[in-house]
Amino acid sequence: MQLFWTPASPFTRKVVIAAKELGLWQRIDVKPTTWPLDWGYATVPFTAGLAAANPVARIPTLITDDGVALGDSTLICQHLNSLATDTRVIPTDGGQWPMWALYAVADGLLEAQVAMRAEMLRPDAIRSAGFLQKQQDRIRRCFDHIEEHAVELSVPGGSLPNLAQITAGIACGYQDWRDWLADFRPGRPALSNWYGEFSQRPAMRETEPSDTPEA
Amino acid sequence: MQLFWTPASPFTRKVVIAAKELGLWQRIDVKPTTWPLDWGYATVPFTAGLAAANPVARIPTLITDDGVALGDSTLICQHLNSLATDTRVIPTDGGQWPMWALYAVADGLLEAQVAMRAEMLRPDAIRSAGFLQKQQDRIRRCFDHIEEHAVELSVPGGSLPNLAQITAGIACGYQDWRDWLADFRPGRPALSNWYGEFSQRPAMRETEPSDTPEA
Repeated sequence: MQLFWTPASPFTRKVVIAAKELGLWQRIDVKPTTWPLDWGYATVPFTAGLAAANPVARIPTLITDDGVALGDSTLICQHLNSLATDTRVIPTDGGQWPMWALYAVADGLLEAQVAMRAEMLRPDAIRSAGFLQKQQDRIRRCFDHIEEHAVELSVPGGSLPNLAQITAGIACGYQDWRDWLADFRPGRPALSNWYGEFSQRPAMRETEPSDTPEA
Repeated sequence: MQLFWTPASPFTRKVVIAAKELGLWQRIDVKPTTWPLDWGYATVPFTAGLAAANPVARIPTLITDDGVALGDSTLICQHLNSLATDTRVIPTDGGQWPMWALYAVADGLLEAQVAMRAEMLRPDAIRSAGFLQKQQDRIRRCFDHIEEHAVELSVPGGSLPNLAQITAGIACGYQDWRDWLADFRPGRPALSNWYGEFSQRPAMRETEPSDTPEA
């Protein structure tokens, strides 16, 4: 498999962590991508092969062993989960729907974080303070929701973390990484304690975010 | 089930069409939502119950029969598909991955259309011509890709359309609806012919888009 990747994308980090937890990482050939800083408001030169594989021209994009290009991180994680032979990151038999509910909140949180990043990169004159506030409000609501559902974050012994847990951990990590995002911990003791432990998993430690090379 | 809905959202239309095609529509209690026109760059007053169910505060949000709130249209469609007893909108046994690949392109196209809508609603001073061009370029690439893959759009007799086909049809319909989006037909004869027929399905005709009430 091939994965178009950068270390800055939380959606890409989700795929990498799922692959590592599932024991599939060594089967993936990583294709690093570069993104000029005007990616949010311009059609930039794409890394070779990206737009041909996925015309949305976004990462992560995974090329499966059958040559199918999947350009959505949720679908990529579902595909990786389907390849695993032992324990999985998506529960079955009805347990998947509550997991997906929490996942969608954590994933919406990542979207808000990335939307803020794109807005921050705009020239001052066309940056919307209202847009940034809207995303901050969304981030606050989502973290509050995850705090209220913290009981769903604990990983039973012998199990892999599920995709909601992985995505919540990535949201916490992104919030810590960007200095224009507020600390998520005040008022959220359960999430804070959980993340302190979860962030020490090897798959989390090996994927800490860093800026994408610009070219 | 309950569905937070508007007739303007292509992601919501996807859920409605999937439900209708699967014969599940009459089991869904529709909750119309209202959105002031500054929704793209402000935290607006949400329709009662929406943010409590889904802190991302986006539509579509489906509350399942078990009371689980799913706030992502792809996951909602997967849930509806799991409830169907006969024919499905998601293939199985490996056929789902090529379907998901095309689906992700059509869904990325919807995202670009909605991103343009949100940008168009911004005050002139903070509207980015570059951002609009970026999305137009993405839309063009995605329609070109779908044209090249038009063989995957035909619905075999006796089958339901799959989610990629439904989403491609919605993308064509949105492009026709908004007068600031160009006709997708020139240079794309296969897609044009296909949409001429596909758009006549009852589930498509019953869900033609219209503007959301502002309050």
